[in-house]
Amino acid sequence: MTSASFDFTPLLPAGLPPPALRWTGRVKYDFTGGNNDPDSLPLPGLIAAADAVLRREGRTLATYGLNSGPQGYRPLRDFLVAKLKADASIACAADDILITSGSLQALDLVNGTLLARGDTVIIEEDCYQGSINRLTRLGVTPVGIPLDRDGMRIDALAAALEELKRKGVRPKYIYTIPTVQNPTGTILPVERRQEMLRLSAVYGVPIFEDDCYCDLIWSGQRPPALYAMSERGGVIHIGSFSKSIAPALRIGYIVAPWDAMSRMLALKTDAGTGALEQMVLAEYCAAHFSTHVPALRRGLRAKLVTLMESLTEQFGPAAEFDDPQGGIFLWVKLPDGVDALKLYSPALAAGVAINPGPEWSVNKARARSRIRLCFASLSHEEINQGVAALAEVCRREFGVPAP
Amino acid sequence: MTSASFDFTPLLPAGLPPPALRWTGRVKYDFTGGNNDPDSLPLPGLIAAADAVLRREGRTLATYGLNSGPQGYRPLRDFLVAKLKADASIACAADDILITSGSLQALDLVNGTLLARGDTVIIEEDCYQGSINRLTRLGVTPVGIPLDRDGMRIDALAAALEELKRKGVRPKYIYTIPTVQNPTGTILPVERRQEMLRLSAVYGVPIFEDDCYCDLIWSGQRPPALYAMSERGGVIHIGSFSKSIAPALRIGYIVAPWDAMSRMLALKTDAGTGALEQMVLAEYCAAHFSTHVPALRRGLRAKLVTLMESLTEQFGPAAEFDDPQGGIFLWVKLPDGVDALKLYSPALAAGVAINPGPEWSVNKARARSRIRLCFASLSHEEINQGVAALAEVCRREFGVPAP
Repeated sequence: MTSASFDFTPLLPAGLPPPALRWTGRVKYDFTGGNNDPDSLPLPGLIAAADAVLRREGRTLATYGLNSGPQGYRPLRDFLVAKLKADASIACAADDILITSGSLQALDLVNGTLLARGDTVIIEEDCYQGSINRLTRLGVTPVGIPLDRDGMRIDALAAALEELKRKGVRPKYIYTIPTVQNPTGTILPVERRQEMLRLSAVYGVPIFEDDCYCDLIWSGQRPPALYAMSERGGVIHIGSFSKSIAPALRIGYIVAPWDAMSRMLALKTDAGTGALEQMVLAEYCAAHFSTHVPALRRGLRAKLVTLMESLTEQFGPAAEFDDPQGGIFLWVKLPDGVDALKLYSPALAAGVAINPGPEWSVNKARARSRIRLCFASLSHEEINQGVAALAEVCRREFGVPAP
Repeated sequence: MTSASFDFTPLLPAGLPPPALRWTGRVKYDFTGGNNDPDSLPLPGLIAAADAVLRREGRTLATYGLNSGPQGYRPLRDFLVAKLKADASIACAADDILITSGSLQALDLVNGTLLARGDTVIIEEDCYQGSINRLTRLGVTPVGIPLDRDGMRIDALAAALEELKRKGVRPKYIYTIPTVQNPTGTILPVERRQEMLRLSAVYGVPIFEDDCYCDLIWSGQRPPALYAMSERGGVIHIGSFSKSIAPALRIGYIVAPWDAMSRMLALKTDAGTGALEQMVLAEYCAAHFSTHVPALRRGLRAKLVTLMESLTEQFGPAAEFDDPQGGIFLWVKLPDGVDALKLYSPALAAGVAINPGPEWSVNKARARSRIRLCFASLSHEEINQGVAALAEVCRREFGVPAP
């Protein structure tokens, strides 16, 4: 035995992602990530829910799956049946729902069930980074469909499907965030949803509907889910409590027909999703979800207004953006001379974390000068200070906004 | 569009596991799974911990990772640093620990970091089903090492390593449950641990130490962990709170040197392990772990005694077993004429669920007449009734035990 430390390097398989860096703490003005507004967290309600549900049935924690089986805590699924019906017009049963460890596990289970290396999928051109990264790791080719102010452009979707068919390629799914799209904040209108479903049926390509931001629409009004509008069952729907209650509670869900559900369930080999979080959410949400969410939305909308005003004040016409209909992020276009990937590091050094556009798009060139700014977790004052600091860095590095 | 439902079948990739069956509820006498004793669950303590920690810092639930970074809630890692030092003689820092969503995610992260299809690993011949199944799914060949009453036989390990080397095969790891082995309940003595570490260094094969049952030794005395005894850092150590506190709380952990840790961390793309469960565990365990566990052990030991007495009463000499030094299961040898896989279904029909030996071994022939019986979640009365019902089915199907 030698004193040299064991070398794992020769044992690592090909294709691993780069090693993680050591965590160095949060930055002062963090405009990244889906963190939520701490002041809007319904803490007293969660505390009361934890106490009530644990006193009533806490001893079931001694049993994997809490006597509810592998699809998750039954009262949480029952809440979702009612919520999905009321909000998204989805008619489903508790057995159509699988509770997951965040909607990221839902992404993994859908991908694990449908994808193999070399496959092709269709996604929105500007898209959630976690979804893009998963496809890259799996060796799957994403075909990006451009968006306009009404979400995915259906003419472009139809053209892409036809073009792929001509090449003999059947995409495995059409991935869409139709209800407050990430990062554009757009909402796909009912007519486009109908047309997308028609194309899905014609080309035999299922729709993978990610509805994780759907609770955060300012108006409180949303179109029916694609899952609800489907007549043939070719939609897999996922959602989350991260945006509506708290992101650190890792609870998401999948709604799917049984022939897809039974395949995903077979891949969920984690002995169940965290039970305490499911219990507390079910107890809290059954009584308070419908009153909590409008209050949360009001707080978020106010922060968005602060962010937009601050950008206008600091950047003037150099920062272009649409006023999104909901969500926790703003998709900002800076002048063409700004390279968002090169803005990232000096901004971070100045205490400002941003999401560079190219990391949230499969059209890296078009997203070159775009950034995503999440506003939920910062105070109004921090938003103003952070935008001012970002403007200063951007001016120094790229000459915009003009002094 | 037709009225026929969407057919996912042509889209499924090769190699998926069979679809899951619909859950039909728990059976009356369930001797399977790692469920724990509901009466020993420290419920009042967990309720008080939830209340205290949420009141103090509940608003951090609005932030992914609770301001503790991607390796998990810092106070829980701090508790583990102290616990691992006191119990397992492991000297490590909080940054050597990654909190996982159960030790099953830990298995997945270690496997994801080290294994590729076609690889070979070394495991104990009789072994945890979840570990065997994962290797099968990954297309990895497990080489089983026989056990005796002191755990893995080191002479057989040495021979297997030499034989593999001769064939040009470098196994990716030696997987062992050295401290209350599953399913045999054996504990690897210090001398064998030293020898295993020596072989690991000589052959350049790291050790994957799964210590999830280590808290449940009747005597409260355990040998140092292999991780603690290693001088070169070639050990990855995993553990769990499932057996010591509650299985439905999905919290496990990995202890590893940074060059392996940074690779596993890069594969943990779930935005963190459930925060509420981490917070409650940290709050509870810091104050009460060391008094809770001995009480839990006493209750489990009493149930094991009931199970052994019941087997002797109902099966007589037809049921052979060693009195294990800890754990929540008994590994029982029935007469050679009994095919445990064929006993499973009629037993289930009679309300008795068992783990057939061949599902817990890579030596299917040797394990043919063995069964694993978990005893923690049943009452003493249920243990007696369940064993009586099992004896009746076994007699009817295989003629043993003799009437």
